[in-house]
Amino acid sequence: MQQFATVAIVGVGLIGGSIGKALVKRRLARRVIGIGLTRGRLAEAKRLGAVSEIATSLRVGVAEADLVIVCTPVDTIVRLVLEAAQACPAGALITDAGSTKAEIVAAVNRSIPRRATFVGSHPLAGSEKTGPAAARADLLQDRVVVITPTAATARRDVSRLSQFWSSLGANVVRMSPDKHDQIVSEISHVPHLVAAALAAATPRKPLSMAAGGWHDTTRVAAGDPRLWTPIFTTNRAAVLKSLARFEKTLTSVRRALESGDDDALAKLLAQAKRRLDAAGG
Amino acid sequence: MQQFATVAIVGVGLIGGSIGKALVKRRLARRVIGIGLTRGRLAEAKRLGAVSEIATSLRVGVAEADLVIVCTPVDTIVRLVLEAAQACPAGALITDAGSTKAEIVAAVNRSIPRRATFVGSHPLAGSEKTGPAAARADLLQDRVVVITPTAATARRDVSRLSQFWSSLGANVVRMSPDKHDQIVSEISHVPHLVAAALAAATPRKPLSMAAGGWHDTTRVAAGDPRLWTPIFTTNRAAVLKSLARFEKTLTSVRRALESGDDDALAKLLAQAKRRLDAAGG
Repeated sequence: MQQFATVAIVGVGLIGGSIGKALVKRRLARRVIGIGLTRGRLAEAKRLGAVSEIATSLRVGVAEADLVIVCTPVDTIVRLVLEAAQACPAGALITDAGSTKAEIVAAVNRSIPRRATFVGSHPLAGSEKTGPAAARADLLQDRVVVITPTAATARRDVSRLSQFWSSLGANVVRMSPDKHDQIVSEISHVPHLVAAALAAATPRKPLSMAAGGWHDTTRVAAGDPRLWTPIFTTNRAAVLKSLARFEKTLTSVRRALESGDDDALAKLLAQAKRRLDAAGG
Repeated sequence: MQQFATVAIVGVGLIGGSIGKALVKRRLARRVIGIGLTRGRLAEAKRLGAVSEIATSLRVGVAEADLVIVCTPVDTIVRLVLEAAQACPAGALITDAGSTKAEIVAAVNRSIPRRATFVGSHPLAGSEKTGPAAARADLLQDRVVVITPTAATARRDVSRLSQFWSSLGANVVRMSPDKHDQIVSEISHVPHLVAAALAAATPRKPLSMAAGGWHDTTRVAAGDPRLWTPIFTTNRAAVLKSLARFEKTLTSVRRALESGDDDALAKLLAQAKRRLDAAGG
């Protein structure tokens, strides 16, 4: 069952730590090497059972890896993938867990040496929580992982990567980097921006009275701004396009309320409810 | 401990049913009479332990009530309160559970006979769920209930009502109907409109990939449009004012993204996160 003997995870936060825990728990790799900048965080990941070994040097950590997964903020992924590509064994497969794909895949493919292979991934299982302590072996169970091979990707590498994510319990979906970025702008990035704008626009004083609805609607905006800012900026065009669609809908809501067109308002609420009912829980 | 011997609950849905369950469970009333239009739903409420008696006639149901609580959609509350005021014993206290207060309180006070007393209430414990089956005896535990007495309200009635909600475990907050409506526009009504606009604006196809963030952000929009449309239309001015504040913030987010002002974007995300951290979970 061990598809990869040695897996190196660069960045042992929520996603990297969860991948590690699942690999360790399911005995899917002989060695799971956690790579990071700070020994304390790596030691925590090891104590929590997310990795079996640790390394603060990327070169050392990936030297014997069959699979390298870069689970760091999107604005660091290209550099770390290219460093890993220089240091890993020939033939190793490299992927990432970044929330945007087009910029990353294009930049990596421009510079990656032939000795290594990169195929982008995005596990859609984020959370406002961060760090190895939030990691869970079942984080990817029944969640979608998008993989974004290009025309240049060998069929064998697509299937190796797909099998890897499947072995963690995920549902693997394959699409182009551009298509991925458009979809996540709609189901993740714009909701995040809207939640953040709502949280920022709510006056501080009445917040003590806020019930479940306000907390639900704004929850994702508790995500780390240092992780999210580069997500938006590496998916600018798609986010602006999806945001325009939201603003148009919101304007029609406001106009219905302003003009006393209660039927139009009721229709929009009914449309929203249908969309939610169709989307499941 | 029985502050009111006979409590009549008009409308045995989520809120009315939960109040009834709490009264029955805590033995806070000798009789809890559920009043509604359909015998099937009333029988369900009785079977679930939310009421001890049922009545399909408002006049009959409130005839011996010391306290009447109208827990029906906001566009029906004024009529039902005035009907109850004609039929209940002299000196009875009437309240409601409507999500808006200024229009309701003003309309009731214009027409209510002296023999009865009305003080508005709003338990901030809604949910996208509806109906007696969703009712829970602890729904109001540690939740805020706003009561909105006016200058004409007797101190004794304020304290009777306040003690009633406290006996159900709620934290009672007293404020004017206008102040209430402004606050709920910020913490509830605008978040609901934004969630609905987001749900309606998201294309159907990628929804199968939506992760927890999208579902959290849109959840409240699953609420019944027939309940929510009159909430917005009876709080139009305050909602439009709060909505304008949200739109202004969203515009500044969009402009930061458009112009590549990543620092401004990061600052806004950080401001949102601070607001959320201050608001607690």
